[in-house]
Amino acid sequence: MDMQVRRGVFITLEGMDGCGKSTKGRMLAEELVSKGREVVSLRDPGSTDISERIRTILLDPEAVGMASECELLLFEAARAQLTCEVILPALERGAVVVCDRYYDSTFAYQAVGRGLDEELVRRANRMGSCGLTPDRTIVFDLEVDESFERATRHGTDRMELDGEPFQTRVRHGYLRLVAEEPDRVRLVNGHGEKGEVYARMREELLDLLPELSEDIL
Amino acid sequence: MDMQVRRGVFITLEGMDGCGKSTKGRMLAEELVSKGREVVSLRDPGSTDISERIRTILLDPEAVGMASECELLLFEAARAQLTCEVILPALERGAVVVCDRYYDSTFAYQAVGRGLDEELVRRANRMGSCGLTPDRTIVFDLEVDESFERATRHGTDRMELDGEPFQTRVRHGYLRLVAEEPDRVRLVNGHGEKGEVYARMREELLDLLPELSEDIL
Repeated sequence: MDMQVRRGVFITLEGMDGCGKSTKGRMLAEELVSKGREVVSLRDPGSTDISERIRTILLDPEAVGMASECELLLFEAARAQLTCEVILPALERGAVVVCDRYYDSTFAYQAVGRGLDEELVRRANRMGSCGLTPDRTIVFDLEVDESFERATRHGTDRMELDGEPFQTRVRHGYLRLVAEEPDRVRLVNGHGEKGEVYARMREELLDLLPELSEDIL
Repeated sequence: MDMQVRRGVFITLEGMDGCGKSTKGRMLAEELVSKGREVVSLRDPGSTDISERIRTILLDPEAVGMASECELLLFEAARAQLTCEVILPALERGAVVVCDRYYDSTFAYQAVGRGLDEELVRRANRMGSCGLTPDRTIVFDLEVDESFERATRHGTDRMELDGEPFQTRVRHGYLRLVAEEPDRVRLVNGHGEKGEVYARMREELLDLLPELSEDIL
């Protein structure tokens, strides 16, 4: 995307289910709105009619025979629709886009978690994101036991049926991304009270969103 | 796919809607079954639970805001499921797989028809087919007027809403494939009685299916 056209800020929130990213995303949106920014809060897969229909197929616990390649391409299809229909126009308007998961999830879950070929996943990610890269990605890190316990408290979907060895690989996938792209991908310790974790996340966004430093929440 | 493992024959039928490929596919299946072959007849997108759910999204006339990239990736997702769940196991058993459309449709419709980047479409096709290539592809060729009239007699789906200039580009896309891969992709004149067209198609399959020459239909 042409940087002269892109005036907004694109932030993605990552981590295992139960890591607290959705709550922190809502807190960030509230604070930015209260400071006068337009905020577009999204989840990937989802957040458009077509992407939500794809999400329903992806998360259906009945779809146990889904081929890994099919799963990968469905995630990318949902993402392409979200990117073209919502994210790119919002960034052009100057909005802050806060997206719960984006292509780093696909790397962590499909490539490192499920063992799909990494280069295949990276190529698919470029297709699904239509070449867009987040300005900043926050990875909320928790021990696998803790996030798994939090995530499965209210029942499980198909992605969560894979158990602890899978979750451990996913966590390592995220840690690799932090190591490979330190400017973009930042690790935030997910332990502690939500205000405390939120404060850690804000620190990692100050350079992109200076309004966050204007006031203590 | 390893040729030592692949004992079956994979045939795909291509052309514009209304070109007569589905009828000829049924005739071919009947003849081969009567000669003792296992035949697996499929349509792409479709023919598995998951792929049919994806097909429903793709062909929904309401989904008018679908991004080209999303459409491409949905076709590939449906194809990956069909390939892994049905086609590869059938070829390993030694069956003849007859598939109504496959990745050449995506090249003709999405790349040449809609103008998506050709290299992107070729890469996506390799993902969706999991690297599998048809042994023979029959393109049924008709004038655009005629196939369009036949196809829209019973109402239109989303793909058919694009009108004649689009259909003309799609036809040219198919003609390019015939020119580029003459061993695999064969043009069959779609005009005339169905027995006549079927006989032309059989000629193009004799080297792969010698049982077709054993008897006059």
